[in-house]
Amino acid sequence: MNQLRWDPTLREWVAYATHRQDRTFLPPAEYCPLCPTKPGGFPTEVPRESYEIAVFENKFPSFSPDAAEPEEPGSTLTPTAAGRGVCEVVLYSDEHGSTLAGMSQRRIRNLVEVWADRYEELGSLDYVDYVFVFENKGEAIGVTLHHPHGQIYALPFVPPRPKKELEAARDYRENNDGRCLHCDLLAQEHEDGRRVVAKGEQFTAFIPFFAHYPFEVHLYARRCAPSLTDLDAAERDDLARVLKQVLMGYDALFGFSLPYVMAMHQAPTDGADSSGVAHFHIEFYPPNRAAEKLKYLAGSEQGAGAYIVDVLPEKTAETLREAVERAGS
Amino acid sequence: MNQLRWDPTLREWVAYATHRQDRTFLPPAEYCPLCPTKPGGFPTEVPRESYEIAVFENKFPSFSPDAAEPEEPGSTLTPTAAGRGVCEVVLYSDEHGSTLAGMSQRRIRNLVEVWADRYEELGSLDYVDYVFVFENKGEAIGVTLHHPHGQIYALPFVPPRPKKELEAARDYRENNDGRCLHCDLLAQEHEDGRRVVAKGEQFTAFIPFFAHYPFEVHLYARRCAPSLTDLDAAERDDLARVLKQVLMGYDALFGFSLPYVMAMHQAPTDGADSSGVAHFHIEFYPPNRAAEKLKYLAGSEQGAGAYIVDVLPEKTAETLREAVERAGS
Repeated sequence: MNQLRWDPTLREWVAYATHRQDRTFLPPAEYCPLCPTKPGGFPTEVPRESYEIAVFENKFPSFSPDAAEPEEPGSTLTPTAAGRGVCEVVLYSDEHGSTLAGMSQRRIRNLVEVWADRYEELGSLDYVDYVFVFENKGEAIGVTLHHPHGQIYALPFVPPRPKKELEAARDYRENNDGRCLHCDLLAQEHEDGRRVVAKGEQFTAFIPFFAHYPFEVHLYARRCAPSLTDLDAAERDDLARVLKQVLMGYDALFGFSLPYVMAMHQAPTDGADSSGVAHFHIEFYPPNRAAEKLKYLAGSEQGAGAYIVDVLPEKTAETLREAVERAGS
Repeated sequence: MNQLRWDPTLREWVAYATHRQDRTFLPPAEYCPLCPTKPGGFPTEVPRESYEIAVFENKFPSFSPDAAEPEEPGSTLTPTAAGRGVCEVVLYSDEHGSTLAGMSQRRIRNLVEVWADRYEELGSLDYVDYVFVFENKGEAIGVTLHHPHGQIYALPFVPPRPKKELEAARDYRENNDGRCLHCDLLAQEHEDGRRVVAKGEQFTAFIPFFAHYPFEVHLYARRCAPSLTDLDAAERDDLARVLKQVLMGYDALFGFSLPYVMAMHQAPTDGADSSGVAHFHIEFYPPNRAAEKLKYLAGSEQGAGAYIVDVLPEKTAETLREAVERAGS
């Protein structure tokens, strides 16, 4: 059952997916459903003895291509809709114990192709308005399966956070002679330099001046490319390179594999023109504020939407930049 | 150091409070800084041998009354401001091991007076635009001190979530002959009835049709009162009564003291008229989706702002209503 309900107080859709309550929860490694199927072993999600990168539809999807019209009719005030969309799982490797940071640059480069391919194909579906590529990593984030994987939600609406960002960029463009908000932010970060964490030929990673998490990193395309599909071969190469640098830096930061949320923000696929408004970038939110301490989204963040951060971005960027250099040398 | 920085992509302030990184973190019970000071013992935050309810300024405040103008000047794109405000701690009891659910109705009634008093006094400060009363409960929410307490943030801006809610209610009012969005939502919940969890004379608790968390409860004033200070004595009595019912129901739900975020939404204190727009209510977000399973705010929620819920509000409301009845009998 995939159903949407409208929240008229926050003016956003909430998605219900009632079969997900019983989804596989931290199985022991030998029963991992994302590993290759071993000869004579139980059948996993991948009916092969090995694989490089694999993509398949999530067995417990938050949105489904054949979602029915909801039985619950709702009202004018609180309408409902079918939770129509596509949820895919992207397996980074068939090695159960590996992580994205540990993949070769070549494999990450292949992943960029996979992400671009899925963005294009899912985005072309008439009921998909936004393709959201992301990864939840680590038990602190609530992952239910350890095998290295990311996810893609092809959504029937532009979700609230990218929507807010796009609206801000659209207003900025209108009030600033057509300039791109993200290009101007990136220029400011380059000029200042204190928060830049890694810099490639085509991509820059930095902790934003207004970071919501101590070690939040934004990885921006230097050129104003709206989406993954707009990146040329050299840009894709550099994305793979700088992405790996950031991830290795994260793991060097405290000397353990750092949990994080990775979220890609790019152009919606709703048919609206978002050139000069959408600017492809990846955002990382690691929950750690120190090796042993997590930042929780509690009353202030959940109830008021007000983020409190214990440390300035200039300080965390310095620490993370050193970790990136250490990991790369 | 209390500093605000403007995020132009989400168009909201982020607060930095750099002394908080070293705040007291889950001390053993005998070193609890919120317990009364024992004769000959170490001095706690309360220099008394016992107390009923106590309120004092947070030693590690996210906002401070004497915050200086930030050294970091920011830019037109990303301005900064002093993190001026007041952060108070509200101790519910001097019994270290108790919880709000375990307090007598009489004490909760006194707490309502305390909350109303603080709302009025803090709200009257010229630099305070919003008084946010909340509680983080349980290690799953990230509490750093177990002693039963809530918090109050007197903020120099209307924070993003209440702001969004107020804007929605204002637009609704303009487009619907001056009707209150929250009154209409409450009427709908009363008429339907399936999601009502507890009903007093003046207050109703329900799981909203569009709940973002499985056991999210909204506790609404039946009358369109903008804030705590607008509640008359009978309403305050009933608030204490229904609040206790909900909290006892929460603890009966899985047979343990349920973690939650409790957040009060009411009229801003920025001088703008919000009658018919602000409608006093309390929202609870418990992280549990089952006894042993937590709902995490991960990629979809943090990176896209899209909430996915595994169970329908009609179902969880039925379970919680039974727990409320069980606890009350």
